[in-house]
Amino acid sequence: MRILEIRERTVPLAGNVANAVVNFSEHTVSLVALISDQTVDGRTLVGFGFNSIGRFGQAGILRERMIPRVLAADPSTLLASDHRTFDAAAIAATAMRNEKPGGHGDRAGALGALELAVWDLNAKLGGEPAYRTIARHFGHSVERRPATVYAAGGYYYPGASMKRLREELKQYRSIGFDAFKLKIGGAPLAEDMQRIETALDVAGDSARLSVDANGRFDLDTALEYGRAMQPLGLRWYEEPGDPLDYALNRAIAEAYDGPIATGENLFSAIDASNLVRFGGMRPGKDIFQMDAGLSYGLTEYTRMIGILEQHGITRAQCFPHGGHLINLHIAVALDLGGCEAYPGVFQPFGGYPPECDVADGLVWPTEVPGFGLELKRELRTHLDILT
Amino acid sequence: MRILEIRERTVPLAGNVANAVVNFSEHTVSLVALISDQTVDGRTLVGFGFNSIGRFGQAGILRERMIPRVLAADPSTLLASDHRTFDAAAIAATAMRNEKPGGHGDRAGALGALELAVWDLNAKLGGEPAYRTIARHFGHSVERRPATVYAAGGYYYPGASMKRLREELKQYRSIGFDAFKLKIGGAPLAEDMQRIETALDVAGDSARLSVDANGRFDLDTALEYGRAMQPLGLRWYEEPGDPLDYALNRAIAEAYDGPIATGENLFSAIDASNLVRFGGMRPGKDIFQMDAGLSYGLTEYTRMIGILEQHGITRAQCFPHGGHLINLHIAVALDLGGCEAYPGVFQPFGGYPPECDVADGLVWPTEVPGFGLELKRELRTHLDILT
Repeated sequence: MRILEIRERTVPLAGNVANAVVNFSEHTVSLVALISDQTVDGRTLVGFGFNSIGRFGQAGILRERMIPRVLAADPSTLLASDHRTFDAAAIAATAMRNEKPGGHGDRAGALGALELAVWDLNAKLGGEPAYRTIARHFGHSVERRPATVYAAGGYYYPGASMKRLREELKQYRSIGFDAFKLKIGGAPLAEDMQRIETALDVAGDSARLSVDANGRFDLDTALEYGRAMQPLGLRWYEEPGDPLDYALNRAIAEAYDGPIATGENLFSAIDASNLVRFGGMRPGKDIFQMDAGLSYGLTEYTRMIGILEQHGITRAQCFPHGGHLINLHIAVALDLGGCEAYPGVFQPFGGYPPECDVADGLVWPTEVPGFGLELKRELRTHLDILT
Repeated sequence: MRILEIRERTVPLAGNVANAVVNFSEHTVSLVALISDQTVDGRTLVGFGFNSIGRFGQAGILRERMIPRVLAADPSTLLASDHRTFDAAAIAATAMRNEKPGGHGDRAGALGALELAVWDLNAKLGGEPAYRTIARHFGHSVERRPATVYAAGGYYYPGASMKRLREELKQYRSIGFDAFKLKIGGAPLAEDMQRIETALDVAGDSARLSVDANGRFDLDTALEYGRAMQPLGLRWYEEPGDPLDYALNRAIAEAYDGPIATGENLFSAIDASNLVRFGGMRPGKDIFQMDAGLSYGLTEYTRMIGILEQHGITRAQCFPHGGHLINLHIAVALDLGGCEAYPGVFQPFGGYPPECDVADGLVWPTEVPGFGLELKRELRTHLDILT
């Protein structure tokens, strides 16, 4: 059994939305296809993965460095010990051969896309949904169960109004979401507070509303927002400052009573370890949002969870960034606190296909083999081109 | 005045050498050319830069993200206030538009190559060597002066012997170097200690010999090497462990009396800041090796120096990684402690052209306009192809 070919394609994200820092209209995603030599009912088994949402496709790193290393390896070294599945950790290590330590940025996304495609392929080899393959591998229940989900929206659209924001959140509620996340930091504090009050009015309960500054604030601004929001008792206050500024994070955690969420821009186990050691994150309270697709894949992501658990942090505190099918399967398989959803934005990757029931803030994974990306209508053209 | 075109080329590094972690034979470098609309004596002025040595070319990130952003910008926004040079910081910020915080890896090298080309171009616009342009910009003396340099070698060559190591270092001494750096961690401790003793015998003085583990060791191994080397009083012990493991670095600094060197795998000001805050680095003692070409260029590199100085660390403690002409000009211009040299390896980028006198452990910068890359014979073909 072997991987015959690895194809990749850079896919633009649809939409004209912005958070406090970036406009997403030029962001792209790498979609990777592992073409195996295995067939089911005459069809070649292909594993698909992508590097989550919100950064960039990594065609250069995949083509020039990682794909050639994997294809040059002795195929037997890439197989699990049962020789019936591929060894995701071995493939990841092979793709990283001759890479130096440090520098966990773009290459972490390149490998994320490739490594996640291994899990899709393994699940298809077993004829089962990916959450079962992942759960079994990491020693969790393989029973079907939903993940707790929240709708991430409230971006800054050109010319958007409070009315639009209210309608956006109401629409999320109408399709089954009962918790929401709103961007802050792209407008003055007074306007952002008005946005938060508007969203609270729809959410009905401050425990159902989080806010996200996307790393924009310096310490003074972060504390100012914290003081203004403190009385509201929001669900969490996400990425107040630079994601690597552990001293700032600690200072905010010491000043702000509510939960802080961060981690979506930490792409390695050592960065996550530093966050826990130096960032003042509180066991049982704060939220960790590392995202396998941006962070070398599931092999590294589970290393991160191991580090958190060594520090008394539970997986219920983990809500991966990136609202899409892959992280839904991961959240279910690993019994995480939940995951994000971006209803209506970041197509063709964002959101879930109609086969995923969303109700009462819970979303059910797909039951077809793999991550079920083939059920995502918006993705079909891209998957077809790769196969 | 404007940049008409930005070209880039991925150049392989020559050589079959390895440190404790990687083999360099598949490493590449991005060479960037900024084609200006200015001419001198009928020749178009072109600024050249590259992303140092030891990681990878970044064609994908340059072509897909950074070059289009710079070329799409209003040219007047990329000029310094005197309109006679380009504004490197503005060009860097433009190239980073819509990039999210965090993830300081490959993209830091892509921008490093591009931003350094701006300094080469600015120096050529002024008809002066780059160290003068850089020194003037940052408020230092523009007088010609040498940098303190050491020869980095002692790599693990296939089948290498102690005799070969001795001859290698003697050869460095014969061409003007009086200080050396040796790789460790690629062999068992006993063999590495024999390598160190052999090198010390050539160096004559332990203050002239450093060792470099390239981030390979876990804490126990790092401490074991530290205990074994402690009595020798070596110049510095470089990158004992993971470059981002600040807790490990602090533990080694607390246990090992001699200077520790690190930083070549930290690619942003916030990472350098974390090293100073959490890594136990000692003012007046330890060595910082951040490298502009790997770290978003000189704009970010000087931010890092500012952070070090805020913590009582002097620029005499800075020895940039990467032994090449660009870092030589930077070390001279910014009055750094010195810089690295790789005589004979990492061609076509490593080392200095014959116009750079090397004697008594000092190396003099080139005097032609810019960084003087055109004087490097091994590079000429690549520069010609780009222009």
